Amino acid sequence: MDIPNLRWWGWGTLDQDYSLEGRPAFWPTLQKWLELPDEAIEHETLPVSLEEISLRPPRLDAPMLSSLRRLLGEETVRTDKRARVEHAYGKSYRDLIRVRAGHIPNPPDAVVYPADEGQIVALLAWAADRGVAIIPFGGGSSVLGGVEPEPGDRPTITLDLARLDHVLAVDPVSRTARIQAGATGPEVEAQLNAQGFTLGHFPQSFEFSTLGGWIATRSAGQNSIGYGKIEDMPQAVRGVTPVGIIETKNTPATAAGPSLLQLLIGSEGTYGVITEATMRIHPLPAVQDYRGILFHNLEDGVAAFRALMQNPDLHPAIVRLSDAPETAAYAVMGHEHHGLRRLADDLLGWYLKIRGYDLITGSTLMLLGFDGDAEWVTRQWDLALEICGDHRGLSLGRAVGRSWIRDRYAQPYLRDTLLGHGVMVDTLETATTWSNLMHLYRAMVSAMKGAIAATGGGPGYVMTHISHAYEHGASLYSTFLSRQTPDPDPLAKQAQWQAVKQATTDAILAAGGTLTHHHGIGRDHAPWLKEEIGPVGMKVLRTVKQTFDPTGIMNPGILLHS
Amino acid sequence: MDIPNLRWWGWGTLDQDYSLEGRPAFWPTLQKWLELPDEAIEHETLPVSLEEISLRPPRLDAPMLSSLRRLLGEETVRTDKRARVEHAYGKSYRDLIRVRAGHIPNPPDAVVYPADEGQIVALLAWAADRGVAIIPFGGGSSVLGGVEPEPGDRPTITLDLARLDHVLAVDPVSRTARIQAGATGPEVEAQLNAQGFTLGHFPQSFEFSTLGGWIATRSAGQNSIGYGKIEDMPQAVRGVTPVGIIETKNTPATAAGPSLLQLLIGSEGTYGVITEATMRIHPLPAVQDYRGILFHNLEDGVAAFRALMQNPDLHPAIVRLSDAPETAAYAVMGHEHHGLRRLADDLLGWYLKIRGYDLITGSTLMLLGFDGDAEWVTRQWDLALEICGDHRGLSLGRAVGRSWIRDRYAQPYLRDTLLGHGVMVDTLETATTWSNLMHLYRAMVSAMKGAIAATGGGPGYVMTHISHAYEHGASLYSTFLSRQTPDPDPLAKQAQWQAVKQATTDAILAAGGTLTHHHGIGRDHAPWLKEEIGPVGMKVLRTVKQTFDPTGIMNPGILLHS
Repeated sequence: MDIPNLRWWGWGTLDQDYSLEGRPAFWPTLQKWLELPDEAIEHETLPVSLEEISLRPPRLDAPMLSSLRRLLGEETVRTDKRARVEHAYGKSYRDLIRVRAGHIPNPPDAVVYPADEGQIVALLAWAADRGVAIIPFGGGSSVLGGVEPEPGDRPTITLDLARLDHVLAVDPVSRTARIQAGATGPEVEAQLNAQGFTLGHFPQSFEFSTLGGWIATRSAGQNSIGYGKIEDMPQAVRGVTPVGIIETKNTPATAAGPSLLQLLIGSEGTYGVITEATMRIHPLPAVQDYRGILFHNLEDGVAAFRALMQNPDLHPAIVRLSDAPETAAYAVMGHEHHGLRRLADDLLGWYLKIRGYDLITGSTLMLLGFDGDAEWVTRQWDLALEICGDHRGLSLGRAVGRSWIRDRYAQPYLRDTLLGHGVMVDTLETATTWSNLMHLYRAMVSAMKGAIAATGGGPGYVMTHISHAYEHGASLYSTFLSRQTPDPDPLAKQAQWQAVKQATTDAILAAGGTLTHHHGIGRDHAPWLKEEIGPVGMKVLRTVKQTFDPTGIMNPGILLHS
Repeated sequence: MDIPNLRWWGWGTLDQDYSLEGRPAFWPTLQKWLELPDEAIEHETLPVSLEEISLRPPRLDAPMLSSLRRLLGEETVRTDKRARVEHAYGKSYRDLIRVRAGHIPNPPDAVVYPADEGQIVALLAWAADRGVAIIPFGGGSSVLGGVEPEPGDRPTITLDLARLDHVLAVDPVSRTARIQAGATGPEVEAQLNAQGFTLGHFPQSFEFSTLGGWIATRSAGQNSIGYGKIEDMPQAVRGVTPVGIIETKNTPATAAGPSLLQLLIGSEGTYGVITEATMRIHPLPAVQDYRGILFHNLEDGVAAFRALMQNPDLHPAIVRLSDAPETAAYAVMGHEHHGLRRLADDLLGWYLKIRGYDLITGSTLMLLGFDGDAEWVTRQWDLALEICGDHRGLSLGRAVGRSWIRDRYAQPYLRDTLLGHGVMVDTLETATTWSNLMHLYRAMVSAMKGAIAATGGGPGYVMTHISHAYEHGASLYSTFLSRQTPDPDPLAKQAQWQAVKQATTDAILAAGGTLTHHHGIGRDHAPWLKEEIGPVGMKVLRTVKQTFDPTGIMNPGILLHS
């Protein structure tokens, strides 16, 4: 039931890593940018070992546990340390600084792995009778505390959907597939690819996150421009709630009242457990052709990006535009034999300078890609290069694309390395209309930098990309890096992070951005939800929650404050 | 405030009509198909005159009326017969047989025309204090009883949004426009066209229906394939509810919890009054090139239709495929100088026969159209004709397209003529996946025919088109015509219609179709909503209603049974 070698204290599995070999400029550059002390570079702080961690005993007493085991079967219920630690947190910076320090005061009391929907129905009834909280858990990759037990005295069981991992049926005529909620990205794609289809959903967490988790949190994949955001993909959803099964009709569209489908999407396990969905799927593309385009500055890049999105003839799978700091980071810190770093070192670097581009202090890199058959992709590229050319974009060719594809799921591994060397790193994201985009960008970056400095984090480094775009607007995704506070207490580090989060989120909302474009609400964004949707919206979401879950057992404290 | 010359007893304005001149085969064919008695053809039953109608006095007493007038202004409040009659019903067959007979036992007690959102806030507070029901009213073109007062003793005010008819702001960069809910189709398009944009929403009711009505009922325009169904178009919605203003964030996408936007869309005035929306708009196309394509049978046509929708290179504005009976009706009953009728009479008719097509007994007509710039449209047509050719589709050229465009909003006018000659006529619509489409089609048509015969309506005539399609499925839209029961009592005619509605709707749901693809729920579909969304879904919608509208004043009895 478990993914072998899972790195309980960090990202992914032990057989994968973000290697810094071949990146000689990485640490020197980062040290300079963040003003890191020498000892942070030289000394790596390792996470505590599992043996060093001691957990509170499960708050489910022996009669309860044996009734649970009778209900679900012996092997379905786990209370061992490893299972409880692995399910105690998601994978945010806040989570990792706590888990690395062994600070786990509030783990779930048990973890259950139901074999089917019937067991979930039984479990929810059992839990409602006993006032036990249930946390639905997919890949556990939430970065907003979405799978963390609520503080307090209530016994809590994490419901891991790992065993519901099948593509149940493919309808090739209608291009839909019924898929179980616990299927991970690779499980979804492998089963669909075998029949010539793809879902096209590739979030950075792809290797570990699950269909149910994507739907529950309104996820967006890196190819959302081509395949849609997750809320566009389910044609129907089915779930178990404390008051019964809910299933929406499998229809491409309907006028039968307000959308229950779009009410379940984004409910983050607070209404019940999504068990399966009928997903819109697409033929597997023959060719993926991703390339880099360089622009003189962000304004040119954004103008080109908008022109690409508003051209009715163009259907890119992916467009990502990095601002100058992110472009510089790729150019300086990338692998010396790959991608932008290699181009920068090559003769091309010299050529770029003559043409007036500067990879370090102003130029912005766009990753642009098309999925489809060969001839179509060629025609799309012809048009795309013309449009980018109108905005002084220069094609850097496929090397940049290949490099990005190779590293597309790698960033979270790097974070584990950074955390060991006293670096604070996190991401915030939002979205807005095209006309408000640059205003929001400036407000967000400036709030982030100001907050980092105010927390004693030094100058910090903030880099942003624009992705997940639409005809009518786009998302912004900023990564910030800075010195951690030297205080070894994880709660001090958390407070430092919280200050940056708070200031940046306030700035995002003040500048007209949405609270979140694809990370969701969880526990960390919940305080701002009222500002996003207003008091009437909050009242409605509270009554919906109350209706699905009258005893309040489903993922308490998530989405809406409890 | 009123549209001049509005035909209170039928469709549209008195200066428009569906002329049968130039259609010599119309009545003889219809008489044969429906087995109409001679006197039905020869004799036209006219609607009663307004003078003959006597309405129940308004149930708002003088003090209430004067307090209302003080609140909103003298001219904003009407209680005259004309206003009350015009707002008593929507425009369904059931509505028209009643209004033509002067059967209006339950009109609204007053009609108000607020000047702005502030007046709506005041009105709702006033009404909630007094237990007065409020019916939001856009164009009044509901075909499901969506604007009809609830039977019972409660005083009822219809809130006509006619004065909120402005495009408030256009954002050309983001391609969005803030538009007031009471703007009709022509008002929306005229204001957007002046700035080079279009909303692209053209339902059959376009001339009279409103933005707010479209959003409240999950409408679909005839060009929904190109521009989306209405629920895809609002980037944000704002409304007044009895518990306060609700406004969703203007963002192209968000992960901030369940979608309140998609909860408001389709709420049919039962939560409150939609006052404005920020709509996604598009550049006005330079060219509209609509043509007819003929297929040997429905199976070929459906296969071609699906291939068009699943081709990533093709972006039609419109595709409508008529089954053989609908194709025959166009061919036989159309205007002798236009469209398919003219082609059938021309030499082309002879050519078609040789090629194995038969306009009367099997061939199916597709209307296919592209909106865009000239060169793009030419290339789209090249590809489209290739795909249609793969399924033995024969291009009939632009005459068919021109004829369809000329008549696109005319059908409802014809209905008034038919009603005067004892013909029952109504439409039902649904949607499903491509793989279930033919099964649903057969079930729907057969139920309709069986029910017509069972009500003594004779053989009847049922014709269907497939439109509003998607990569993953399509809608079905059936029109049925038959002899009315000879009983002059409108309630007898209503019972006859109800029997067909009941049998067909049961069959649609049993065959896996959705209860409605774009007409909405209103009063007529409400009994089936539970079958569509299940008991848990019903419970949730009821609590949402209760939260927005604790005293139950908003459009009672609509959507959810009261």
